[in-house]
Amino acid sequence: MFQYNTSYRVCYADTDQMRFMYYGNYARLYEIGRVESLRTLGCHYSEFEDSGIWMPVLDLHARYLKPAFYDDELNIETRIPMLPGARIHFEYSISRSGGAIIHEAQTVLVFLLAESGKPCRAPDRLISALSPFFPAH
Amino acid sequence: MFQYNTSYRVCYADTDQMRFMYYGNYARLYEIGRVESLRTLGCHYSEFEDSGIWMPVLDLHARYLKPAFYDDELNIETRIPMLPGARIHFEYSISRSGGAIIHEAQTVLVFLLAESGKPCRAPDRLISALSPFFPAH
Amino acid sequence: MFQYNTSYRVCYADTDQMRFMYYGNYARLYEIGRVESLRTLGCHYSEFEDSGIWMPVLDLHARYLKPAFYDDELNIETRIPMLPGARIHFEYSISRSGGAIIHEAQTVLVFLLAESGKPCRAPDRLISALSPFFPAH
Amino acid sequence: MFQYNTSYRVCYADTDQMRFMYYGNYARLYEIGRVESLRTLGCHYSEFEDSGIWMPVLDLHARYLKPAFYDDELNIETRIPMLPGARIHFEYSISRSGGAIIHEAQTVLVFLLAESGKPCRAPDRLISALSPFFPAH
Repeated sequence: MFQYNTSYRVCYADTDQMRFMYYGNYARLYEIGRVESLRTLGCHYSEFEDSGIWMPVLDLHARYLKPAFYDDELNIETRIPMLPGARIHFEYSISRSGGAIIHEAQTVLVFLLAESGKPCRAPDRLISALSPFFPAH
Repeated sequence: MFQYNTSYRVCYADTDQMRFMYYGNYARLYEIGRVESLRTLGCHYSEFEDSGIWMPVLDLHARYLKPAFYDDELNIETRIPMLPGARIHFEYSISRSGGAIIHEAQTVLVFLLAESGKPCRAPDRLISALSPFFPAH
Repeated sequence: MFQYNTSYRVCYADTDQMRFMYYGNYARLYEIGRVESLRTLGCHYSEFEDSGIWMPVLDLHARYLKPAFYDDELNIETRIPMLPGARIHFEYSISRSGGAIIHEAQTVLVFLLAESGKPCRAPDRLISALSPFFPAH
Repeated sequence: MFQYNTSYRVCYADTDQMRFMYYGNYARLYEIGRVESLRTLGCHYSEFEDSGIWMPVLDLHARYLKPAFYDDELNIETRIPMLPGARIHFEYSISRSGGAIIHEAQTVLVFLLAESGKPCRAPDRLISALSPFFPAH
């Protein structure tokens, strides 16, 4: 399994009138978790797009355990639980720095050829970067 | 079962550089579906809040079947599949006007006393408004 | 002068923890005002883009006179104060239905050829649709 | 004058179908610029709110000189050009790291007593922290 931690500061734009981070704004956090995880592997999502590969989200499941509040410094733990094929799974655990998990989510993304909209395999570069984290393969 | 249809026009703010509606922006559509469904039942979410009851989202599951595009006129079909107790379930099917379903989602929300943060039962007014749609009860 | 009214319901996603509509979310309202104004003139912004013309915002000035609140039904009055050339000016006055103005803004947008990024003249179709509102020309 | 630099990574959520950062999303950047500027002065906006003071935006003026793109690492230079009284002015210059300015903006915010909604003076703590940067006073 591959795992990476990123931090995110909840801003005013994220809050709603319950003083919670609005439930729709967590999608931005998953995105940051994914992109920074890939970056640390040497894979830049912008380069995937430049080479004609898109990664839209197919499926999202989120569990809101406790609210996040304004100015919270959140930790986004992002995990890739298995080597990607035509799809890639990401899991996220969000906590306040040093605290308990307040939010969990999973997303499934698909690799698409931008031109045709057809599914394709994960880029070789990504597979190579991830393989050391999955020694059984 | 209770069911209600609302329409939503995808705006530029919703799009991303794939030309898709950004995956995080669907949360706004579910919210509009919920609130307008309740309104047609004579239940205004703002009045729930005024009477000290919050309805935060606990769980969200979304499936992105086809992208939504700029200026699409979407239909949001919102369903309440069972009478609420301490929680309320909503299901959403989103389609382009007259077209196939492009997106499906479910959310679970909890009723909370705003002051204490303790769970509570669904407001009587909501139960009364929904009961005729669940004749078996 | 050309003038058009659109309505907008403030949703939870728009609110912040002051219980105000977040100051950045008004940009969505101006966009809706612009696009629906053009639509009523028979000009669809999506068709401008399909024909290779973009209309990015160059300049924005906004005055927040009174807050907008959750579930407010707002009226967006959009005005085009002069015939467009290489640029188009829009003015917005936002009020609660039947109430005083709570927000005013102006934007300047430029017409660009999407391929080259070069400025161009307003589409003929838009000029034709607007001309009757500017009889002095 | 007081001046502070913060960085911001443009994410997919920020983009629109022109591949530009959507014009309404810059408001989030100004907010981050303001809040991190205050934080470096030892002033936490969340503490202002805890002590009953709100700082809503009254006026915003933005000039979009060049677009910002996905994954750009932006520098937000935030300036406080004069000591605050009942209002506080912020100026922002946004550039790609090491590059030319692509965006400029100014905002005016007002200090309000949250309970009554009445204007008040800037918190003493903020005045004390800023005074060394305005030696003429």
